[in-house]
Amino acid sequence: MRGRFISIEGGEAVGKSTQIRLLADWVKGQGLDVTVTREPGGTESAEAIRTLLLEGGTDRWNARSEALLFAAARADHVARLIRPAVEAGGWVISDRFVDSSRAYQGVAGGLGDEAILSLHRFGSEGFMPDCTILLELPADEAARRATARDGANSDRIGGRDAGYHASVVAAFRALAEAEPQRFRIIDASGAADEVHARIVTTLQPLMA
Amino acid sequence: MRGRFISIEGGEAVGKSTQIRLLADWVKGQGLDVTVTREPGGTESAEAIRTLLLEGGTDRWNARSEALLFAAARADHVARLIRPAVEAGGWVISDRFVDSSRAYQGVAGGLGDEAILSLHRFGSEGFMPDCTILLELPADEAARRATARDGANSDRIGGRDAGYHASVVAAFRALAEAEPQRFRIIDASGAADEVHARIVTTLQPLMA
Repeated sequence: MRGRFISIEGGEAVGKSTQIRLLADWVKGQGLDVTVTREPGGTESAEAIRTLLLEGGTDRWNARSEALLFAAARADHVARLIRPAVEAGGWVISDRFVDSSRAYQGVAGGLGDEAILSLHRFGSEGFMPDCTILLELPADEAARRATARDGANSDRIGGRDAGYHASVVAAFRALAEAEPQRFRIIDASGAADEVHARIVTTLQPLMA
Repeated sequence: MRGRFISIEGGEAVGKSTQIRLLADWVKGQGLDVTVTREPGGTESAEAIRTLLLEGGTDRWNARSEALLFAAARADHVARLIRPAVEAGGWVISDRFVDSSRAYQGVAGGLGDEAILSLHRFGSEGFMPDCTILLELPADEAARRATARDGANSDRIGGRDAGYHASVVAAFRALAEAEPQRFRIIDASGAADEVHARIVTTLQPLMA
């Protein structure tokens, strides 16, 4: 039987890593194989592209090169890790996937959603998650958590200004509302186990 | 006055580097600014992508990731080096450009010419050379020169099999015949200064 591919999306510091760990444990507890991965990266070749994308000054890449690099990394990630694992019956949980490119580069970065989807069709045959969890936090709480976590040490993309990040959050919300079958919008405020319980409730039907 | 952008194309070991050096000297001799560059690469960021593309085993990248990486490198190269230099009135001579992606990945690699052109429109606004010199050699002479030059030390792409390289050469010829205004097909056999004289004759009208 085919497995499931779940992506976890959201702006900076909404608690994706913690929730992915809790979710992976829960899926394992159901007796299923689970692979946890991330974007950009997830395979050896794609991780080499990740290094190029996240290091260097904010102007190291123009928006178009950046979008092409994300698509190149994703093509490798889908072909060599995600698709084979799902076809072998496993669950794959990815920290970010194509919706991050759509929100960050497509909408907030001004390249347009259609351009990003077109790169995804070329690179990865338009492969999409079975379910995408969008974690949402009020802006002031996300900013507080990001400062507590990163201080002044954010990467090339995390380090962009507040207006950019607000536009990313709004873009995620619009993508989720446009595809209600695939997306689940989850309130990420409160204790980690409360958020986890909300995610499990929404994913339970996929276990069938 | 706007300068000129010249790309030099061809299969392996047709003598591109030698001809580029001779051509750059000739352009300089006409009192013009000249920038010599290469693909993939040409800028600091694009050279980092070049390293990813040319190192590693032949299966390091699938064809689609590879095409996206070339397009990402080219987008940086056009935006930061080629276009500004040409707009400032200089001549730019590039060792390979988008026609290499079309011939190697598009035709010989099976992705299709339209897919490569579409990535080029996205990444580099479809920016094209004013003139493309296609250097051609009989297959046995190219093979002999490649062995003399590289021995067993060719890179990830140069190291592919003879059938692939024959298909690249045929693809270049078809691209050149489809765009006779932009392409000049130059016989690359014989002494370097004879080949250089053929190139100068064909480029002279661009000096006007």
